Amino acid sequence: MKLGLLGCGRIGQVHARSLSRIAEARLVAVADAVPEAAQALAARAGAEVRGSEEIITAPDIDAVIVATPTTLHFEQIHAIAAAGKAIFCEKPIDLSAERAAQCQQAVEAAGVPFLTAFNRRFDPSFAHLHDQVRDGAIGEIEMVVITSRDPAPPPISYIESSGGLFRDMMIHDFDMARFLLGEEPAEIHAFGSCLVDPAIGAAGDIDTAMVTLRTASGRLCQINNSRRATYGYDQRIEVHGSKGMLQAANQPAHLVTQASGGGFTAARSMDFFLERYEAAYLAEMTHFVDAVTRGSPLKATIADGVAAQRLADTADTARKTGKVLSL
Amino acid sequence: MKLGLLGCGRIGQVHARSLSRIAEARLVAVADAVPEAAQALAARAGAEVRGSEEIITAPDIDAVIVATPTTLHFEQIHAIAAAGKAIFCEKPIDLSAERAAQCQQAVEAAGVPFLTAFNRRFDPSFAHLHDQVRDGAIGEIEMVVITSRDPAPPPISYIESSGGLFRDMMIHDFDMARFLLGEEPAEIHAFGSCLVDPAIGAAGDIDTAMVTLRTASGRLCQINNSRRATYGYDQRIEVHGSKGMLQAANQPAHLVTQASGGGFTAARSMDFFLERYEAAYLAEMTHFVDAVTRGSPLKATIADGVAAQRLADTADTARKTGKVLSL
Amino acid sequence: MKLGLLGCGRIGQVHARSLSRIAEARLVAVADAVPEAAQALAARAGAEVRGSEEIITAPDIDAVIVATPTTLHFEQIHAIAAAGKAIFCEKPIDLSAERAAQCQQAVEAAGVPFLTAFNRRFDPSFAHLHDQVRDGAIGEIEMVVITSRDPAPPPISYIESSGGLFRDMMIHDFDMARFLLGEEPAEIHAFGSCLVDPAIGAAGDIDTAMVTLRTASGRLCQINNSRRATYGYDQRIEVHGSKGMLQAANQPAHLVTQASGGGFTAARSMDFFLERYEAAYLAEMTHFVDAVTRGSPLKATIADGVAAQRLADTADTARKTGKVLSL
Amino acid sequence: MKLGLLGCGRIGQVHARSLSRIAEARLVAVADAVPEAAQALAARAGAEVRGSEEIITAPDIDAVIVATPTTLHFEQIHAIAAAGKAIFCEKPIDLSAERAAQCQQAVEAAGVPFLTAFNRRFDPSFAHLHDQVRDGAIGEIEMVVITSRDPAPPPISYIESSGGLFRDMMIHDFDMARFLLGEEPAEIHAFGSCLVDPAIGAAGDIDTAMVTLRTASGRLCQINNSRRATYGYDQRIEVHGSKGMLQAANQPAHLVTQASGGGFTAARSMDFFLERYEAAYLAEMTHFVDAVTRGSPLKATIADGVAAQRLADTADTARKTGKVLSL
Repeated sequence: MKLGLLGCGRIGQVHARSLSRIAEARLVAVADAVPEAAQALAARAGAEVRGSEEIITAPDIDAVIVATPTTLHFEQIHAIAAAGKAIFCEKPIDLSAERAAQCQQAVEAAGVPFLTAFNRRFDPSFAHLHDQVRDGAIGEIEMVVITSRDPAPPPISYIESSGGLFRDMMIHDFDMARFLLGEEPAEIHAFGSCLVDPAIGAAGDIDTAMVTLRTASGRLCQINNSRRATYGYDQRIEVHGSKGMLQAANQPAHLVTQASGGGFTAARSMDFFLERYEAAYLAEMTHFVDAVTRGSPLKATIADGVAAQRLADTADTARKTGKVLSL
Repeated sequence: MKLGLLGCGRIGQVHARSLSRIAEARLVAVADAVPEAAQALAARAGAEVRGSEEIITAPDIDAVIVATPTTLHFEQIHAIAAAGKAIFCEKPIDLSAERAAQCQQAVEAAGVPFLTAFNRRFDPSFAHLHDQVRDGAIGEIEMVVITSRDPAPPPISYIESSGGLFRDMMIHDFDMARFLLGEEPAEIHAFGSCLVDPAIGAAGDIDTAMVTLRTASGRLCQINNSRRATYGYDQRIEVHGSKGMLQAANQPAHLVTQASGGGFTAARSMDFFLERYEAAYLAEMTHFVDAVTRGSPLKATIADGVAAQRLADTADTARKTGKVLSL
Repeated sequence: MKLGLLGCGRIGQVHARSLSRIAEARLVAVADAVPEAAQALAARAGAEVRGSEEIITAPDIDAVIVATPTTLHFEQIHAIAAAGKAIFCEKPIDLSAERAAQCQQAVEAAGVPFLTAFNRRFDPSFAHLHDQVRDGAIGEIEMVVITSRDPAPPPISYIESSGGLFRDMMIHDFDMARFLLGEEPAEIHAFGSCLVDPAIGAAGDIDTAMVTLRTASGRLCQINNSRRATYGYDQRIEVHGSKGMLQAANQPAHLVTQASGGGFTAARSMDFFLERYEAAYLAEMTHFVDAVTRGSPLKATIADGVAAQRLADTADTARKTGKVLSL
Repeated sequence: MKLGLLGCGRIGQVHARSLSRIAEARLVAVADAVPEAAQALAARAGAEVRGSEEIITAPDIDAVIVATPTTLHFEQIHAIAAAGKAIFCEKPIDLSAERAAQCQQAVEAAGVPFLTAFNRRFDPSFAHLHDQVRDGAIGEIEMVVITSRDPAPPPISYIESSGGLFRDMMIHDFDMARFLLGEEPAEIHAFGSCLVDPAIGAAGDIDTAMVTLRTASGRLCQINNSRRATYGYDQRIEVHGSKGMLQAANQPAHLVTQASGGGFTAARSMDFFLERYEAAYLAEMTHFVDAVTRGSPLKATIADGVAAQRLADTADTARKTGKVLSL
């Protein structure tokens, strides 16, 4: 399978590195608005530098990875779909739910494979937990509890164009909630606060939030988010069912515990999301290459991307209006 | 210090046992509507059987433990307060918030010491966590997450007269939330479902619930409750602050792990609340005896009892109306 | 069952406290060379002060607890056996293996029940581990690994009369090794060092040791001991069999973990052996009372006490001679 | 840096994969007695197939990886040293300690860099533990305890030519013991048994062993080995010092725990050593490339390889003779 990459920033480089470890795939060409970025990655990856349009329409390319700024997704998704190529797209599809839905229509009309890059679905532990839930290991699902706290907030400039905490950060948790609840959320409630950095509040956003979801049959889900966690990434999941509970713990930075007068100290959680999710990124790309090659279904579709964004949008409104909203 | 005990049921027996381990206290007399229950406990404890009124007014008794059915609390609290004795009272004060508030007025007017028996405040781990929070170990408090799942639901007959999940079960968690947030909750949201046993729903109650609280300054708290946990009592607390996090784990039944082809299996959590909270019950009674003897403040007052009930009442309304409510 | 207690020091007080929690037993009389010690304990326990000989021969006493200095055991054991009473005896039986064996003969000849107070056998976790081993949960036993490290060394004066690390400290581990191996050790090797406090070496003892045992069929056991552990009592057991492994962990002082920039810090192990083994001491005395009352076998006999001492003696010789010794 | 690889078996393939992830290194040529094996690896790695002698003397190759059967090491090490190239050599150097010492002389005389591939030194957790020990985090070292149990025994044909458990398996633990003790062992004791598979005994080997080491200053080390562990690789290290303890735990296969009526079940340890030590193999090769490029010292020299083999040889004699031996 031959791939092109649009966007050579941090996440584009991650995907190039994953491809170098997948025997069945080859990164043929890369593009970036910054020529030096494209050249540097091309050199490391043994790929060519081409223009975006050229990659999208190239006859020697089967699939395109969209790792560009969100504002470019709409046009690129439409063009790649029109070219009949498979699409691997970073989330969010688009900050506007309406435009994201238009992308979904275009993709589904073209009938091209589309993976929304919800990398957490591919994390080995989260994937194992999901498989256990699906296979009935804990019976009927009753509650899902998702913790998601970042080590530190991003720059204010990023916050300003991020779409806000629900669309930028909690969207991953909304996707995991849908992935695990086994039913669509029907009602949503959200509280949010600015407790970490007043500058985030001044930028019109929140940095601390708690959201609750309820499905039609009454399954419940709690999510909490913070832009601060002094002890490293804190991304845990707990699912409670009629027969028991599954818990996915944090990934420790190492396996050494130090015992002293003050107690037993184990390692921080991993700090850097690229390291924390290295195995997930590789598994995600491996799945994309495998599924597209075999024509089998992708584990996170554009419909999943659109649905998570709708939850994020509704959570935002719920918080701002102080109302419980239906979905 | 000489004590009398009203109510010789399960929890009354626990308090008698605690008193037998406190050198400074002596259980003088016990009363129960069932004479055999009173006689059996009196024999074991080396106490006399007397009538309730007799105990309340006895000149040789300094403090009275109220462990009778909730419906009797109102009258007994008023009588003991009028007699000028210290009161150790099981929660809830009264199923009616108004009547509970009347009790509070009577107790405060009489100036007698009153401990609302929120035993979890005295659990060694929860107490340690609280002390760390209070001493600033994790900086400014941002989030509290409370998990509280019982091994199995009580009999339907109990459910029917319990006042409902929020007043019977989550009241402990509301108290812990207030104990740990460092501020009064200002807003509350509640979702509830009947997922464990349809008979609970038929009795007009829920068995699964998620509640979120928000204080005036924006601190957030999530609580989840279930009447089912196949792996034993699941009562964990997590507090997240500007400098870090504190977590109180479950009490395992033992410390042995078995490794085999299926992985590493550690013990269930303790199953029976009297065993799970044995140390808490002893610490609670020890605190009561100490504080009353020295005239120092009690760690859980009647005002705390009334406040937790108000949260429970409001949660119930919030759930039933589907609205976010102010407190 | 009516008991007398010889020796009102720290461990004698522990046994008196345990008896106060056992409904079927009553401590009738206590004796101590220091009259004030006997009077203080008698007052707390509701017992009489009597002389040792009086207790041993008293017609109203069924069993005697020997908690006196080791040098007095020989004579007291013989006297109590002659009086036909059940014996609960602190270890070691006697610092001389020969004299201990004479005690065994006297006890067995008299046919009186005798419990050697190896409290660890009664620790709930160690007992659970043992039951699992016995019930075949991990198949055929292959290896036992015992860690035993004290928080801090005892006073040098204690060291001087203790019989040395193997007889005073590792004797508990030798007993657990025998308890778990399912076969008698046939060969023994010992290394020892003085690394904690040179004064211990000056007193002719070691403070750090590693011993290995091998049974006739080839089962292996490693023990390590240190008089120093900055993080609290460190007493773990690991048993490896054909089907898996069992591990008994340390008892933490509480269940709270603090997460911060430096990682996740859990509680120290419990520091004080009376607190660490409180449940074990109660279970031990409960077993003694039950077994003697019912005439059922005791879980740790005088033969077990003598066998553990023989291992301690042989380890001492093995270390001093630098030879592997047969047993 | 340009490298050649001798031996395209399992471990040779691991090293080729590591090199593909190191930007500063390039695998130029590979050799194997089985032409198909060499061709397959060459194709995947983008390298040429050449003869061993050709690689050893090639002017375009800076360093040679020796991943051939042990019997070939002696001649190849001498040839590569004579050619003045850096050497990355799998352990053991040679099954004969004398011949290994001759290799050491040749390498040291030639002055070429030589890394003995003790991969565990490069495992991130073991390396972190070692750095903490070296930096004084736990004060003066007193005890080291090393657990090393394989999931299942290798084929009997492998056992027969392996040199025995001490030289084939425990050699890694001897190296870690030397790495962590901070002093050379001065005395050694070994017990061994055949408990896992009688065919191993019939082949003249043992499958279960316990070894104890003592340094001149009295530091102690226990090692236990088994060819069986139903729960996955069991390779833990514990170091006890004057200020505390460091423990390196097993690598779990995933981070999910399942709670049910039977307790809390966490994942097996990783099963396959190539997966378990994937990060270690990459770090090892990265270190080799870095250190040779910069001319800085290697973390595991040929002297380390020879010293570990001497411990293995002496342990074997100690076990067979039943004597404590000096080193």
